[in-house]
Amino acid sequence: MSDTRCWFNCHVATMVGGHYSVIADAAILARGERIAWIGRREQLPSDCQATDLHGAWVTPGLIDCHSHLVFAGERSAEFELRLEGTSYAEIAAHGGGIASTVRATRAASEEQLLDSAERRARQLLRDGVTCLEVKSGYGLDLASERKLLRVARQLGERLPLTVRTTCLAAHAVPPEYTGRSDDYIEHVCDEMLPALAAEGLVDAVDAYCEHLAFSPEQVERLFEAATALGLPVKLHADQLSALGGAGLAARYLALSADHLEYASDADVVAMGTAGTVAVLLPAAFYLLNESRRPPIECLRRHGVPIALGSDLNPGTAPVLSLRLVLAMACTSFGMTPEEALAGVTLHAAHALGLAHRHGSLEVGKLADFVAWDVRRPAELAYWLGGDLPRRVIFHGKEVGDG
Amino acid sequence: MSDTRCWFNCHVATMVGGHYSVIADAAILARGERIAWIGRREQLPSDCQATDLHGAWVTPGLIDCHSHLVFAGERSAEFELRLEGTSYAEIAAHGGGIASTVRATRAASEEQLLDSAERRARQLLRDGVTCLEVKSGYGLDLASERKLLRVARQLGERLPLTVRTTCLAAHAVPPEYTGRSDDYIEHVCDEMLPALAAEGLVDAVDAYCEHLAFSPEQVERLFEAATALGLPVKLHADQLSALGGAGLAARYLALSADHLEYASDADVVAMGTAGTVAVLLPAAFYLLNESRRPPIECLRRHGVPIALGSDLNPGTAPVLSLRLVLAMACTSFGMTPEEALAGVTLHAAHALGLAHRHGSLEVGKLADFVAWDVRRPAELAYWLGGDLPRRVIFHGKEVGDG
Ligand SMILES: [Zn+2]
Ligand SMILES: [Zn+2]
Repeated sequence: MSDTRCWFNCHVATMVGGHYSVIADAAILARGERIAWIGRREQLPSDCQATDLHGAWVTPGLIDCHSHLVFAGERSAEFELRLEGTSYAEIAAHGGGIASTVRATRAASEEQLLDSAERRARQLLRDGVTCLEVKSGYGLDLASERKLLRVARQLGERLPLTVRTTCLAAHAVPPEYTGRSDDYIEHVCDEMLPALAAEGLVDAVDAYCEHLAFSPEQVERLFEAATALGLPVKLHADQLSALGGAGLAARYLALSADHLEYASDADVVAMGTAGTVAVLLPAAFYLLNESRRPPIECLRRHGVPIALGSDLNPGTAPVLSLRLVLAMACTSFGMTPEEALAGVTLHAAHALGLAHRHGSLEVGKLADFVAWDVRRPAELAYWLGGDLPRRVIFHGKEVGDG
Repeated sequence: MSDTRCWFNCHVATMVGGHYSVIADAAILARGERIAWIGRREQLPSDCQATDLHGAWVTPGLIDCHSHLVFAGERSAEFELRLEGTSYAEIAAHGGGIASTVRATRAASEEQLLDSAERRARQLLRDGVTCLEVKSGYGLDLASERKLLRVARQLGERLPLTVRTTCLAAHAVPPEYTGRSDDYIEHVCDEMLPALAAEGLVDAVDAYCEHLAFSPEQVERLFEAATALGLPVKLHADQLSALGGAGLAARYLALSADHLEYASDADVVAMGTAGTVAVLLPAAFYLLNESRRPPIECLRRHGVPIALGSDLNPGTAPVLSLRLVLAMACTSFGMTPEEALAGVTLHAAHALGLAHRHGSLEVGKLADFVAWDVRRPAELAYWLGGDLPRRVIFHGKEVGDG
């Protein structure tokens, strides 16, 4: 068949079961966009258009399951001011912080947003990402949130990339609602979410549960509305204080609870029972100079799958490489390279509800994979920086083949 | 003249004086390998073969003034074992650590070493590096140290890159000299250094001054020998304990003292007086989970120029991006983006004794510069990862032009 392709002379970390699950001297056969066969090269069942990978290591395409990729107005000026001694309070008083990103994003056209988001997404692509979650949350009104989510959808059409959209209208209280956060949540539940969902723009619903954003009660209200619309939920939980967000997320069978620095043991147990994935964000942890690590040992003990995200955003994580996040998860959190790789493949797929098609290399799943210029898969977490992908295959086709 | 080229429609952070020293809407004119003119575009004196930089920001080519780039045998297996719970002691007992790199490096052919070093150097190049220091120190006998330094020299011939070689034979006590470190230092001083210097392979001499390596007295002996040969010195000083290494380096008017986590105020004062540059290595600091920062405030107060290096090495800093080191210097050490950029341009040039030709963009210096895809120079320290160089110019020629 003409749509059958084959890659051989490689070693594969299939990531089946969240482990390397290595096939040495392997071959992969794709029919259309799916994997039709994978195994030892000598058992390859048929001849086909074959590509020699020259001994490269192959992994599933990387999945970034937590990003705020679409925004206008990078914040390097604020980053520089802070390092020159200006306080957060002064910066906020001058309209900096998230408010400045919201202003810039509202003012930007869809085309401008798409252009800048596409440039950032291409950076992630070069580094082996084939699937990306994109959150809204810098619009904070119906028209602007719609604009962000439409841009996210278009990224998936323009680039060799699966894009999942998450509505994060409950990211911050917009200026029009200062002091009226309950009213804003009501507006999100009654107007924004139903409208955006009806337009097919929402794959999941997220919120920022923190003293400076929304309370557990407000989040619960939002989750009720999402559930009524049939949308799965996720939550920015317990990053800076212990509000029980992770437990709340588990009660709503959330796909994931993210950050988790202050999650309690009880929260973790609840996540394990609910099947809620822990999404850790080591780049923000590092850039914020945090010292309290997420409860890695407890997550392991209770069998909670640990995923990793870039958290790509202009304020706390201007990160253009997901692979860098692997290294940081090892150094900052003490995760193993194998856990880190599972965190951006199989477990990340679970965090997006996509594990039936993504996240590991097995027959029937999508043929999304990367051939890396390394001799051991641990090198992916070992080298900081550098350009390691040799080839990227998306849906059975080589990226760059046109 | 046919060897005159010009770049225009850019903003330049010239880094003159170690500050951004911006020229907005600039042009740069190169004659041969030098800068013949630089200034406001409207004052450009003559027409020439002109390249439009489309509003990019230009900085001097980045200088990595501290690397151990040439080695065989990456150590991701050891990295993985450590994260899986194996102790340093167990790894060392099984021949791991620096001993494993020395074994692999001694066993490798010059060609093999050149091949792997070239691949790593190309990664640095993609990220805007045009000048690189390379230390020996994984050979630890005359033939092997010669092999490393020859490879370093060949890198400079093969790639669009200025390479400076540093003899670090006093990196560790080789297995043949276990328990006889004084004898080894004597061998280095009497045999290795004179031979390697006579072959033109040594631009500077370095040592590792630490309890687990060489004492201040042994370093002093080495520095006497280097000085007698007319070679400038540098020192790995005060990284893990306060041995007064930085002060010792200053007494020998060292080009630089590197690491410096435990340097005392008196050491810093001595460095300021001697003109010894402080080379900080934030990647190793991060990867070793160190908590004691180098004395940044004290260095600033005493006017000691602060440079930054990748410390690229297989054990404590497998770093393939110098730009990443800028971000880490800001986050881990609280340096400003401007200080960080000066640390990989003008101050790094001083740390290599090259500031008369490298490190800032001014008439008479080499036309080594990078046009970056950013709107503010602080973005170079702000984005973690990503591929930001748009063009790299080395000695007046576009890299990639052939
Ligand atoms: Zn987030
Ligand atoms: Zn070093």
